[in-house]
Amino acid sequence: MTTGLPEVPGAAPRRVDPFPAGPASAFLAACRRQAVHHTPVWFMRQAGRSLPEYRAARREGSILGAIADPELAAELTLQPVRRYGVDAAILFCDIVVPVHAVGFGVDVVPGTGPVVDTPFRSSADLRRLRPIEPETDVPYVLRAIALLVDELAPLGVPLIGFAGAPFTLASYLVEGGPSRTFGKVKALMHGDPATWGALLDALCGITVTFLRAQVAAGAGALQLFDSWAGWLSPDEYERFVLPATRRVLDGVADLGVPTILFGVGTGELLGLMATSGAGVIGVDWRVPLDAARRRIGDERAVQGNLDPAICLAPFEVVASQARDVLRRAGTDPGHVFNLGHGVLPETDPGVLAALVDLVHDEGRAGVVR
Amino acid sequence: MTTGLPEVPGAAPRRVDPFPAGPASAFLAACRRQAVHHTPVWFMRQAGRSLPEYRAARREGSILGAIADPELAAELTLQPVRRYGVDAAILFCDIVVPVHAVGFGVDVVPGTGPVVDTPFRSSADLRRLRPIEPETDVPYVLRAIALLVDELAPLGVPLIGFAGAPFTLASYLVEGGPSRTFGKVKALMHGDPATWGALLDALCGITVTFLRAQVAAGAGALQLFDSWAGWLSPDEYERFVLPATRRVLDGVADLGVPTILFGVGTGELLGLMATSGAGVIGVDWRVPLDAARRRIGDERAVQGNLDPAICLAPFEVVASQARDVLRRAGTDPGHVFNLGHGVLPETDPGVLAALVDLVHDEGRAGVVR
Repeated sequence: MTTGLPEVPGAAPRRVDPFPAGPASAFLAACRRQAVHHTPVWFMRQAGRSLPEYRAARREGSILGAIADPELAAELTLQPVRRYGVDAAILFCDIVVPVHAVGFGVDVVPGTGPVVDTPFRSSADLRRLRPIEPETDVPYVLRAIALLVDELAPLGVPLIGFAGAPFTLASYLVEGGPSRTFGKVKALMHGDPATWGALLDALCGITVTFLRAQVAAGAGALQLFDSWAGWLSPDEYERFVLPATRRVLDGVADLGVPTILFGVGTGELLGLMATSGAGVIGVDWRVPLDAARRRIGDERAVQGNLDPAICLAPFEVVASQARDVLRRAGTDPGHVFNLGHGVLPETDPGVLAALVDLVHDEGRAGVVR
Repeated sequence: MTTGLPEVPGAAPRRVDPFPAGPASAFLAACRRQAVHHTPVWFMRQAGRSLPEYRAARREGSILGAIADPELAAELTLQPVRRYGVDAAILFCDIVVPVHAVGFGVDVVPGTGPVVDTPFRSSADLRRLRPIEPETDVPYVLRAIALLVDELAPLGVPLIGFAGAPFTLASYLVEGGPSRTFGKVKALMHGDPATWGALLDALCGITVTFLRAQVAAGAGALQLFDSWAGWLSPDEYERFVLPATRRVLDGVADLGVPTILFGVGTGELLGLMATSGAGVIGVDWRVPLDAARRRIGDERAVQGNLDPAICLAPFEVVASQARDVLRRAGTDPGHVFNLGHGVLPETDPGVLAALVDLVHDEGRAGVVR
């Protein structure tokens, strides 16, 4: 940043810190709707195929194999922190890891996503979702987090742990893989609400245990991905999904770490999501952020919401659209800048690096410089 | 329908017709927000793989081959009219037919959708979109319509012609096939608005000519599919898409046939779509229909909006959800019952048949019995 002042080699920065005993992390502060030095920014899928160093480190191995290698998972998690100077790291992991670990029989197929050998069909399948024991079922996740905390703590960068929300996780188990229609999962929730409820109960238990273990290992915030909740009507979301999401968030509330609830296409659901117990609501690019803040209310922070597809346009377009997000975020505290969904693999990392600088320089929500 | 009255063999129905000189078609009347005898209903993709008679007639041939065979296209169009007693037929065709016909190089691949040999990349590709001459480029479409009008007119069932809206059509040409992100098309519209505008101009010209020819051949209503408009932000839709959609609708306004504009995930766009010139706005299942009617206003009819995935649940669930749609549609005129997107291939035709009866019996929007 250029200050316009003559630089004095070795001198301390001349700016007086308005937070002498305040939060070290703009990300954590913004999640709590507190004042910040700058608008924090991170990107969903920041650790991913858009980075050449990611492609070099991952090579041809499976994603679940990479996740099960703590040194590799930690390296992939750190790459975007080094390159972009983002305000938070997010663990390199996948939402199917806990159900895979309890033996449900699910893999992640490159170019497709999660694929389930034998989809969930009836209450007889509930026995395939035993409780998770993180120390023995996912020791590699806890080890990766421990490695990361050692690296990130000196930088003052928090690590975000995460899990799939019960609906989105259930949708993979019931559909057997990615779906555009969610026909099977909707037939189950409407047609056999008792089995649906038992399925979500089992996933709630696994998810709460998994998230608590991540925080115990050192994660400083948690994001719950209910990526496909936006394919539900508001009535379906409220009756069949929100109660389980609330139970997960209740189950980690005593830990005192910020929680973020995110989904795509949730314009009609934002008001309901704001009652989930999450401290931060993630917003995709379809809803202008000022409209989203009105629907969500003043009690929650918001995260988002630049369209990831915009990052493929020339940088002046990216800059203009990012400024529009920042303008709509306003000046009240509680904005974490992010994309409205994950980084697209074909994104130029240079665009994201410049975007981080722009957000840091120009964000105004709760900013005291 | 059971009336509770003793049946008199051969006697005329005892109900007095409140429309002695009124509209013959409940569908056309509802599109015009006029009173109806019953709530009209049809289903997007009603002519499709959910019907055994469709699978038997189509066999293994290509979809573009079936469309180019007027007798087969007419038969496929008529099948759901015979089976369900729907209030409108929709021509068996595909939104890529006109661009295919002018030689752009596009095919429809089963299980994938439209695939373009050489995607649109720059203004040099504009020459691949010459004006369409329906009599020589798509004579089979006009012939199928003529055959259908002969069959449908005696039944009082209108035929809906259709086309892709410029954005959705352009998205296939630019992306090269179906996309979940629309990264290339957004990069083009933002990065090179002049070429984007010229592309939409070319598609407007083709689309208006194609739609006018369908009406001249006998189509009684037109639907414009802007299926993927909901992946745009409101600002993008208003700046880069809505003007071209308006031009298409302006280009057919003098024909006096009802026009329907439909897209998926358009909750944030409904107010803008209501200014397109379309007389009917199609609504997907994400927005409750009463909320949709408030956003759209009193000047337009609405079409929708039962979730197609619900049709895979037990019929009592389908009935309950359909009644919720009818309740939210209210009693003011101007509701065409439909699904919120196309019929899923795995749908039981018996469910749709029972759904038609339910809508006819219980719909109340503008109904005078």
